[in-house]
Amino acid sequence: MVHKEHISKQFDADLEEVRTRVLQMGGFVEEQIEHAIEALTNGNEKLIEQVIAYDHRVNAMEVAIDEICNQIIARRQPTAGDLRMIMMVIKTITDLERIGDEAEKIARMARLIYAADRMHMPRFIEIKHVACIAMDMVHKALDSFARLDLNTAAQIVRQDELVDEEFRSIMRQLITFMMEDPRKISTSIEILFIAKAIERIGDHAKNMSEYVVYMVKGKDVRHVTADEIEREIRE
Amino acid sequence: MVHKEHISKQFDADLEEVRTRVLQMGGFVEEQIEHAIEALTNGNEKLIEQVIAYDHRVNAMEVAIDEICNQIIARRQPTAGDLRMIMMVIKTITDLERIGDEAEKIARMARLIYAADRMHMPRFIEIKHVACIAMDMVHKALDSFARLDLNTAAQIVRQDELVDEEFRSIMRQLITFMMEDPRKISTSIEILFIAKAIERIGDHAKNMSEYVVYMVKGKDVRHVTADEIEREIRE
Repeated sequence: MVHKEHISKQFDADLEEVRTRVLQMGGFVEEQIEHAIEALTNGNEKLIEQVIAYDHRVNAMEVAIDEICNQIIARRQPTAGDLRMIMMVIKTITDLERIGDEAEKIARMARLIYAADRMHMPRFIEIKHVACIAMDMVHKALDSFARLDLNTAAQIVRQDELVDEEFRSIMRQLITFMMEDPRKISTSIEILFIAKAIERIGDHAKNMSEYVVYMVKGKDVRHVTADEIEREIRE
Repeated sequence: MVHKEHISKQFDADLEEVRTRVLQMGGFVEEQIEHAIEALTNGNEKLIEQVIAYDHRVNAMEVAIDEICNQIIARRQPTAGDLRMIMMVIKTITDLERIGDEAEKIARMARLIYAADRMHMPRFIEIKHVACIAMDMVHKALDSFARLDLNTAAQIVRQDELVDEEFRSIMRQLITFMMEDPRKISTSIEILFIAKAIERIGDHAKNMSEYVVYMVKGKDVRHVTADEIEREIRE
């Protein structure tokens, strides 16, 4: 922890509890993505329904952590680094919740695809590949949050560029595929939305990594390029 | 304003400044959506480039308001309703910033469409129609924020259901259109992403309206249905 020792030990305990809860929420969200992609691969209906049903748990976790943060601000009146830590948490859980929404969307698309018995899924290897990168980004973003590690944060921003590129490539391939066989248009659109959901997961992981830089450096790096962030970290 | 009179008049002035800035940011974001849709309609290249170039202004506004909120928390140590007000602001500007991103995406799609000289845009009337609803939602969300008006907030949640329905209808029509004429697939996908961006603008407006309910009722209504919110407001 970077913050100085507090007069109130209770304060440290509060912050520790909040960090633990964010990591638990993050772990759960990671599992949701993993299950969504697994269900998409093997058409496991039970798993599809589980991902959809469990989304409300992610939402409940966000609301609960938000509430704890409000209580900490009201009771402990944090300033400087401690306040930035709380702000980082409040923003991080918003992105985690939205990653959860994207996992749910992937599961819903998997349901549509399997309900229509369309087992042949174009560009499926590419989808799994880009999903792997996005999952790695979320995992790294949580590590970076836990250890306040700036180098990992910078790597995530680079990976996000790769995910965006992969998304555009999948889109181009799907368009060609649809032109060759218009009967596959519906399925291709579903796959396209799955690719889009994965691309968004990458965006959210990137947001999370930027909050870590803000927490540590006290400087807002949202909306700047990867190069600028790396310069910022070296300083 | 719902909060009680403060010992510090400076505090009231701080809160007032923050609210004014959020409304300014909101007004600017509304203009960005309007311009993006206008540019999409008439292919005005200058306007397309302006929307893309101005997105960084939206980002800068978010960062500046965030900073003011942090300062208020650190200096004034707000509790209860005042703290909820600040939290509402911090969450609202995140959604406003992302609405700005969607406006930029629409402008980028307009650029692609006009660069390829594909003037015939399928489902364009429907796109303008759903964009009107989404813009109305953003406007209402800002009104609801300014006046802490719960009835408007409830209307927005209802409108969001309509926008989602319109999006699904546009998607179905585009799929039919692509099947009939595979040469139109590229343009159709671009239109589909424009529809998706508009649908997301609706989602963000809905988020904003939910923060107003939280601010006023002190109760979190995220992730509940429109019926539940209406019940909550009546209580």
